[in-house]
Amino acid sequence: MADEVKLYGAMGSPFVCRVKIALNMKGIKYENLEEDIFNKSADLLKYNPIHKKVPVLLHNGNPISESLVIIEYIDDVWKGIPILPQDSYERSIARFWAKFLDDKCIPALRVVGTNGDEKVVAEACEQLQILENELKVKGTKFFGGDNIGLVDIAAVFIAYWLGIREEAAGVKFFTEDKFPKLTKWADDFVNSQLVNNALPPRESMLAFYNKMFGNVN
Amino acid sequence: MADEVKLYGAMGSPFVCRVKIALNMKGIKYENLEEDIFNKSADLLKYNPIHKKVPVLLHNGNPISESLVIIEYIDDVWKGIPILPQDSYERSIARFWAKFLDDKCIPALRVVGTNGDEKVVAEACEQLQILENELKVKGTKFFGGDNIGLVDIAAVFIAYWLGIREEAAGVKFFTEDKFPKLTKWADDFVNSQLVNNALPPRESMLAFYNKMFGNVN
Repeated sequence: MADEVKLYGAMGSPFVCRVKIALNMKGIKYENLEEDIFNKSADLLKYNPIHKKVPVLLHNGNPISESLVIIEYIDDVWKGIPILPQDSYERSIARFWAKFLDDKCIPALRVVGTNGDEKVVAEACEQLQILENELKVKGTKFFGGDNIGLVDIAAVFIAYWLGIREEAAGVKFFTEDKFPKLTKWADDFVNSQLVNNALPPRESMLAFYNKMFGNVN
Repeated sequence: MADEVKLYGAMGSPFVCRVKIALNMKGIKYENLEEDIFNKSADLLKYNPIHKKVPVLLHNGNPISESLVIIEYIDDVWKGIPILPQDSYERSIARFWAKFLDDKCIPALRVVGTNGDEKVVAEACEQLQILENELKVKGTKFFGGDNIGLVDIAAVFIAYWLGIREEAAGVKFFTEDKFPKLTKWADDFVNSQLVNNALPPRESMLAFYNKMFGNVN
């Protein structure tokens, strides 16, 4: 019997996008189910009763929630391009950075634009600088080395969403000048074939953020 | 060459305690290095430059931070009692609950006593009820089944610290009456030989919290 794979997602979510990239890396075909986050489906509430959030992956009837947990599962069950490193120590370092992105970095970046405080931008830059340094120390094209891995996928918000949010919010700090390694990484990452078709259209996202930041009615 | 294993910790930290339990499950001998959290060692700052926090595990010179990341590493590299389930789906569910504990449950519980607001206790009870229901649905002694696993270890704060904090704060909501499964689980868990010698002395912890809550000078 062929695998039945369904993804409950929402077009604009970077957390859903992470799962789509991971599925691309394994060459897995799936049914994409678009949730209305203002009117969630009975299925979503059934499959993720604790958080009631996308993404949820349904694999042969088994639901899995939380994007990083889903990615580990995908890497566990399907062959294809490896997502986590094979070496135990390297794997722990990848998990450390993915957790850093979720706990520290992305929360700091998501405040930008909703708050004009200069401290907000300074804090965002501080988090980005940590990643810039890490890429510099590694000296590789991606956080995963020569190829995309867990940390790259976890950082998709930085690679794609951040620039769009900056444009809508009328701020610009994620620049080549300040972050040469990280902006080059972002460019390489979003232009990878494995990533590109998982991204939502730029115009839709810009319209969404323009509305969120009150630029349009 | 024998493995060199060092743990940079602090006696009262439930996150450090998690790592000690995991090392017990693998029967690993280690050097316990007690940090003064008000005057952190140069080693700690070197090995965890991003968060500057305990626990840090040093294995043959390689540092690993973040308690859940460390536990996955320990389970990866050492034989002994398995910590994560062998089955990929079960493993993802264990990771989901460990993340729930860190992201939702423990933060809600750690506010209790520092804030007299009734909403704080209600929110804490709501999170505990989710775990109570999960144990009821599973119908097993531990979250890990018949044996201790990742979720049990991740929940050590609830099993041991919570009651001590309640006593110091003069509140009591984690009761057998309200949470029959979870209080029974806590009792079984702290009395397990694998857990018991990893716990800090109750009197020291009570004295610490009495001071924190202003009960003594």
